[in-house]
Amino acid sequence: MADTKIRVVIVGAKGRMGRETVKAVLHDPELELVGCVDRTLNDVAVSAILGHEANGVKFSNDLLKTLIDSKADVMVDFTTPTTMKANIDKAIELGIRPVVGTTGMTPEEIANWDQLCKDRGIGGLIAPNFAIGAILMMRFAQQASRYLPHVEIIEMHHDQKLDAPSGTAIKTLELINQERQAVQQGNPDEHETIAGSRGGEYEGMRVHSVRLPGYVAHQQVIFGGLGQTLTIRHDSINRESFMPGVVMSCKQVMKYEGLIYGLENLLD
Amino acid sequence: MADTKIRVVIVGAKGRMGRETVKAVLHDPELELVGCVDRTLNDVAVSAILGHEANGVKFSNDLLKTLIDSKADVMVDFTTPTTMKANIDKAIELGIRPVVGTTGMTPEEIANWDQLCKDRGIGGLIAPNFAIGAILMMRFAQQASRYLPHVEIIEMHHDQKLDAPSGTAIKTLELINQERQAVQQGNPDEHETIAGSRGGEYEGMRVHSVRLPGYVAHQQVIFGGLGQTLTIRHDSINRESFMPGVVMSCKQVMKYEGLIYGLENLLD
Amino acid sequence: MADTKIRVVIVGAKGRMGRETVKAVLHDPELELVGCVDRTLNDVAVSAILGHEANGVKFSNDLLKTLIDSKADVMVDFTTPTTMKANIDKAIELGIRPVVGTTGMTPEEIANWDQLCKDRGIGGLIAPNFAIGAILMMRFAQQASRYLPHVEIIEMHHDQKLDAPSGTAIKTLELINQERQAVQQGNPDEHETIAGSRGGEYEGMRVHSVRLPGYVAHQQVIFGGLGQTLTIRHDSINRESFMPGVVMSCKQVMKYEGLIYGLENLLD
Amino acid sequence: MADTKIRVVIVGAKGRMGRETVKAVLHDPELELVGCVDRTLNDVAVSAILGHEANGVKFSNDLLKTLIDSKADVMVDFTTPTTMKANIDKAIELGIRPVVGTTGMTPEEIANWDQLCKDRGIGGLIAPNFAIGAILMMRFAQQASRYLPHVEIIEMHHDQKLDAPSGTAIKTLELINQERQAVQQGNPDEHETIAGSRGGEYEGMRVHSVRLPGYVAHQQVIFGGLGQTLTIRHDSINRESFMPGVVMSCKQVMKYEGLIYGLENLLD
Repeated sequence: MADTKIRVVIVGAKGRMGRETVKAVLHDPELELVGCVDRTLNDVAVSAILGHEANGVKFSNDLLKTLIDSKADVMVDFTTPTTMKANIDKAIELGIRPVVGTTGMTPEEIANWDQLCKDRGIGGLIAPNFAIGAILMMRFAQQASRYLPHVEIIEMHHDQKLDAPSGTAIKTLELINQERQAVQQGNPDEHETIAGSRGGEYEGMRVHSVRLPGYVAHQQVIFGGLGQTLTIRHDSINRESFMPGVVMSCKQVMKYEGLIYGLENLLD
Repeated sequence: MADTKIRVVIVGAKGRMGRETVKAVLHDPELELVGCVDRTLNDVAVSAILGHEANGVKFSNDLLKTLIDSKADVMVDFTTPTTMKANIDKAIELGIRPVVGTTGMTPEEIANWDQLCKDRGIGGLIAPNFAIGAILMMRFAQQASRYLPHVEIIEMHHDQKLDAPSGTAIKTLELINQERQAVQQGNPDEHETIAGSRGGEYEGMRVHSVRLPGYVAHQQVIFGGLGQTLTIRHDSINRESFMPGVVMSCKQVMKYEGLIYGLENLLD
Repeated sequence: MADTKIRVVIVGAKGRMGRETVKAVLHDPELELVGCVDRTLNDVAVSAILGHEANGVKFSNDLLKTLIDSKADVMVDFTTPTTMKANIDKAIELGIRPVVGTTGMTPEEIANWDQLCKDRGIGGLIAPNFAIGAILMMRFAQQASRYLPHVEIIEMHHDQKLDAPSGTAIKTLELINQERQAVQQGNPDEHETIAGSRGGEYEGMRVHSVRLPGYVAHQQVIFGGLGQTLTIRHDSINRESFMPGVVMSCKQVMKYEGLIYGLENLLD
Repeated sequence: MADTKIRVVIVGAKGRMGRETVKAVLHDPELELVGCVDRTLNDVAVSAILGHEANGVKFSNDLLKTLIDSKADVMVDFTTPTTMKANIDKAIELGIRPVVGTTGMTPEEIANWDQLCKDRGIGGLIAPNFAIGAILMMRFAQQASRYLPHVEIIEMHHDQKLDAPSGTAIKTLELINQERQAVQQGNPDEHETIAGSRGGEYEGMRVHSVRLPGYVAHQQVIFGGLGQTLTIRHDSINRESFMPGVVMSCKQVMKYEGLIYGLENLLD
């Protein structure tokens, strides 16, 4: 029943996450690739660039035309934070569900899109991280903070990453903050002889961002207690790790109304 | 209301865990130290050996007499696996609740004590690990195994430890095994050029025991998935980390009937 | 001066390490790709399979013919241990320098090839690991063992790896064994309740091999001392990490006679 | 030959490091405990406070008198950075060799004490860290930075520590800086959404300080390269780990003139 497949447009399809998503969508029996958008390519067969069959889909640099012509159900967007915002607006306006991997959106922006999605009767998802292991890390961190309220986060990423801390780290801090009782961490008289050594501060918790070649996307959440530490660590070494989450999201956004922030909210 | 305090006898009180327990019981307002047993000492004031006040309690090398004379509610035992078995039998016979930190008891032994406790209408607890961080590690490991069934355990302990793997590792394997779908791990054609390199095998999972000076009690549970790993690690660096769990156990065993194996089963 | 380039044949060129090597050789100005051998392909352009220009080189399934016709200086071999042995013999016989990434060769085999290389007046290299970070790890481990003789190794690899422990682990054990004073590690009375838990044993040291999806090639060497541990860890997440070492080896084997085992012996 | 023993005064002897040093000096056959200074105690037997024999030595709160009366060769000082400075001045003036565990002295202060020691013809040592494993970590970090110049440091300490980063971290950065070629690390356009997330900056390298209960003194030096990372980690879980270094220092300061900063400079 080809007509029941979920029709997916991928934006930023020539990028690294975009390429993986093209492959993943092509391989999933419930999804159908109906458009690929990239600002650098127009009227070029996907197969010519990515080296594999792609249903005859061509790259386009015209998002609006592609969204309309393709009769898409879902728009997966892996471009840049700035570009994404306009893209999400366009998609929702057309009744197409956005599935977006990014960080750096404000609570106001998310609330606004949530309302717009509800007004259109569609679902949407923005996730800083599509790796199931990362979602579990965040969930466990939130639970552990009830019993062990002293916590710091270290996240490590490749050295070309622009923002610090990572979206996953910020999300983790937010989740912990919902559960954790307020606690004074560290020595009240501590001082930095090199400014910034103690990391960034969020509601009394500290976060540290390491940037080195050889890393991809990694995070440790460390809880300290009397005579013990508990460390929850996720290591993601390539973009394959995100695809099960992206594919699941394309299917789930068909089933609810409003914009969900965070893949963990799609799990039971 | 001194008469409502829980009366505690500590066996193996001169040992390292025993000493910490003496301190912890003395400091807790709901507990009362009423006896200290150690095979090497008789009629010696606890304060003379441990260097702090102890309610005038003296060491005795006679467990049975101490249990009877002290009118104990709870017997905390940190001796050796062999000694413990007889001690647990005696305590239950006298209607005194055993709180025992050990590993290496068989399911049959545990089931037997469980029945004996029920027959006497008392509670009991045997725990391989009293550290709350360790309990959380096991809980999270069990949950994660639903989503990421490929798992191995590495535990690291001080180099004088006798048994391998640790009781915590075995308990973790058992808990995971309750949740995890059967999965073929590793390459079916793998072979060891040094026997034992691939560790111990339990229901398809592997466990590795490291023994070095400088370690105390540590464990990592590592889950592997496509392009990612999730690691849950607990580090315990001294015996203080166990005391909140021991104290909690002395209080909880007053509230139920039967023998519980594992501190996690005392948590909600 | 094209005629001064080092002429390289790659065996197992369609495999994962082979593909990376093809790219690396093509990109290095001092190396020239003159042949690609793979048992599954004959008379097929490299560019057709690997998707990039390759000097017009074609895949061949005939190693001997390729080695002779190409006038190769160096044969890089990333096939299988069994195949490699015959390949090394052939290459040396033809005066072509073997650069081989593998483990599992015996000291006798290595000594024999060393003699054959010397007889032919050529160099050769067999390396279990071409990553410079791994070489440094082994060097530091060897040095640390002088001061901290209690040591264990944990190596983690992807779950399709056939042999355990890894060649890098074995090499590390050998190097440490050259420096480390004999020491009795662990408790003489320790016993395993699950056979193999304490890992493989090599000259009193223990080695543990973890195999999980999500890992690539990782190793920790852990030294224990009074109240402290020192851990030297190398993580290799893709085959790119090996290429600087492979390229360096192709150049270095032109400069000496005899077969060297281990990239570290090429460093100053 | 009791008169050839090295005569040691310990300042801050009632503190945690001081207590360990008392034990270590008492146990070493080449050292003799001749004085214990603590600002809170006067004319009290060491044995009464520390619970073990101490040659009849008494605590004094008068440093100057103790240094003079005891005819000390060496003054070991584990007080506070502020107090230490005056103590070092006094000791050198009296021709007594300072062995001081601290951080936070300026290069100018160190150079000044070095000159004063030389003028008096005595040795002296200031060390941020007395653990041999930490010294090896620093040495290896310095060596690795030649080959892998991208580096960050994460140090973790107990949550009552006052200064960040630790003295060991600063020392490590200085040592690496001597060897490492200048390299632009990270993305030139990176930005922090939480200030301080990227840590402290020292000559292009980043340093991160974690402070949690359950930690004692730990540090990781992480090197990143193409597809790989190399991590050198030291974990110190109690003060015993420092004693071999303190004892060695008491002996070595008898053998040279001038003030040495860093235990590594006492190793061959």
